[in-house]
Amino acid sequence: MNRTIALLTDYGYQDTYVAQLKAVLMSMTSGVTLFDLTHGVPAGNRRSGAYLLMTAVPYLPDDSIVVAVVDPGVGTERRAVAVQGTRHLYVAPDNGLLSLALRMDPPQKVVELDNPRYFLPTVSATFHGRDIFAPVAAHLANGVPLEQLGSPLETQSLIQLADIEPEIMPEHIITHLLHVDRFGNLIFDLHEEVYRRWLPPNGKVVVEFCEEIIPLKRTFGDVNEGEPVAYFGSSGHLEIAVNADSAAECFGIDSDMLEDAKLHIV
Amino acid sequence: MNRTIALLTDYGYQDTYVAQLKAVLMSMTSGVTLFDLTHGVPAGNRRSGAYLLMTAVPYLPDDSIVVAVVDPGVGTERRAVAVQGTRHLYVAPDNGLLSLALRMDPPQKVVELDNPRYFLPTVSATFHGRDIFAPVAAHLANGVPLEQLGSPLETQSLIQLADIEPEIMPEHIITHLLHVDRFGNLIFDLHEEVYRRWLPPNGKVVVEFCEEIIPLKRTFGDVNEGEPVAYFGSSGHLEIAVNADSAAECFGIDSDMLEDAKLHIV
Amino acid sequence: MNRTIALLTDYGYQDTYVAQLKAVLMSMTSGVTLFDLTHGVPAGNRRSGAYLLMTAVPYLPDDSIVVAVVDPGVGTERRAVAVQGTRHLYVAPDNGLLSLALRMDPPQKVVELDNPRYFLPTVSATFHGRDIFAPVAAHLANGVPLEQLGSPLETQSLIQLADIEPEIMPEHIITHLLHVDRFGNLIFDLHEEVYRRWLPPNGKVVVEFCEEIIPLKRTFGDVNEGEPVAYFGSSGHLEIAVNADSAAECFGIDSDMLEDAKLHIV
Repeated sequence: MNRTIALLTDYGYQDTYVAQLKAVLMSMTSGVTLFDLTHGVPAGNRRSGAYLLMTAVPYLPDDSIVVAVVDPGVGTERRAVAVQGTRHLYVAPDNGLLSLALRMDPPQKVVELDNPRYFLPTVSATFHGRDIFAPVAAHLANGVPLEQLGSPLETQSLIQLADIEPEIMPEHIITHLLHVDRFGNLIFDLHEEVYRRWLPPNGKVVVEFCEEIIPLKRTFGDVNEGEPVAYFGSSGHLEIAVNADSAAECFGIDSDMLEDAKLHIV
Repeated sequence: MNRTIALLTDYGYQDTYVAQLKAVLMSMTSGVTLFDLTHGVPAGNRRSGAYLLMTAVPYLPDDSIVVAVVDPGVGTERRAVAVQGTRHLYVAPDNGLLSLALRMDPPQKVVELDNPRYFLPTVSATFHGRDIFAPVAAHLANGVPLEQLGSPLETQSLIQLADIEPEIMPEHIITHLLHVDRFGNLIFDLHEEVYRRWLPPNGKVVVEFCEEIIPLKRTFGDVNEGEPVAYFGSSGHLEIAVNADSAAECFGIDSDMLEDAKLHIV
Repeated sequence: MNRTIALLTDYGYQDTYVAQLKAVLMSMTSGVTLFDLTHGVPAGNRRSGAYLLMTAVPYLPDDSIVVAVVDPGVGTERRAVAVQGTRHLYVAPDNGLLSLALRMDPPQKVVELDNPRYFLPTVSATFHGRDIFAPVAAHLANGVPLEQLGSPLETQSLIQLADIEPEIMPEHIITHLLHVDRFGNLIFDLHEEVYRRWLPPNGKVVVEFCEEIIPLKRTFGDVNEGEPVAYFGSSGHLEIAVNADSAAECFGIDSDMLEDAKLHIV
């Protein structure tokens, strides 16, 4: 079985950035499988990137190498890291992008990528995906131990994103928008398991969002077309959708906004 | 030669839905080739999806497994089906998405996917592509007979889309918009072969669309830049284009509209 | 090692055009690796296409076959060509799309693709990617010599794009916009090497664009968020960006515009 190198970036599909990164990986490895998680993370959006990475990680084969690059601080002082998780290896900027994935796959070892021997010979100021992260991932695939790639860091020193945990109170929950998907569904940081533990016996709940009261159901098909609905979606997280329409458009939300929803017991 | 699993969805490129579906397929099979038809079907648009599926099916290797998911009714009472066509196997929601492909590849056997043994252990309400269609396709690739996947259905019981056949009259034809492509070309349900059989000897034809008279030519390059033109395109279907521009923008059409064009003998 | 067939088109991701082209390649070859450079070139934009092709070519394995199709003149009198470069083979319309790639990979031999024996049996008027360029590339991969594909042409007869070279004066340089990338960065035809040779010792330079004076720095992170900045980007070309925003939006530029920037010694 080939080792999988899984790729998640905000490079989009209209340039050759993804192709350049992959060409570097292909030229430095053999017998690996390149697997695209997505390259359509909204430009520079680390919250969306962190959410999307988390949704894919459970489905990857064990011991994958994950290259994740949403890197608005490229070329500045932000660190680049490699992380040995419990299941997978990660190569990424240290800017919070790995925050959510590493909750499911706790970090065992972290190094800062400060050994230029494992980079391309010339490193541009704006494209570390091609010049640093891809060659480092290739060296990992070829068996270079994590320790050789740079200086050790404390796992606790990794940058965390803010507002990616719901605020749990006895009578209500405040949950933060993480991502807007292609259907315009709004996806929040409240996981169904957390909700179930919080819910009192026989408790009934509504969701408040943008000054509207939204029913909590099983799926969007449980309300009429054009009506808003909340449900726990395919990643286990709370979603707000409008049946047969885009909730993002109906509520005027875009993926760079920080918005909260509130769950009330009724 | 590896067996091909061909994928067509409206999951888009900005999320990891496609990656999750593929990861399930890869984890359950070996020696298959995953082949992307497109994941850019407009969200929930079964007409576009049906047209696009039809355009790709003739180019697939024999005995491919086609996983097609444009599924606005996911999680409701719509059926999920597997269909043995004359050339390929299909796994899809029963909502008309297969209508046009199955005219070229007539169905021999149909089953409703009602045997949860072939699903993922947990089935979400909103992502049957990952939880039902992908594992069923994997089992088919692994040799599970169609009959084991669920209860037999009559082939005639499959849902058909409305308005995907042109209305043929002696003096004119009314043809329905199926799809708007990336160039803004408008593609209709009239195939050139149907047109040729209808056309009287020495007949000359114009197309009427949005109260404009549009010449019927061989290609868009046959009119000046900025001018509208009709021709039979690369799928054999009637198209309306504007040379060096987007007909969709010029005529104010989007892919969810139901619009007709009319061919007149002049 | 498999031979690579690299693909660059403006077919986009919402149709099955790319899938049809690839299916033809796969049906006619074995043991080749299909590699997507991008299919997101703006529709019909040969300047963007030429730039993007050039950025990817250095990263391809030697002796790749490059199929490049941005072809607004398809079905008219424009020629189709195959070009033996110093490193790679190219199959493309002769409309300037190869201009920039062939500067890095000088053409040794060119033929016009006028031998229909190497096309699909039926050639549509609007989809030569599937019907001509893909089968020709497949025949090349299968060992058919370039000379058999059509009539020889002089390498100098290949169509060149206009305004893809900066205008170098002692006191200033005028450079032309080539491409707008997914981040809204504006990319010009001035390469850093040309700039370095031109720059007087101790010379200091600013960039003038849309009546604004823009500082020339190392990367976009060298200015505050929301501020414009010029730098030499990951392809070696001059770029204008706005830190944490889209320069294209801030300056009202789209990828089909012909815009110039001017470098002054200060």
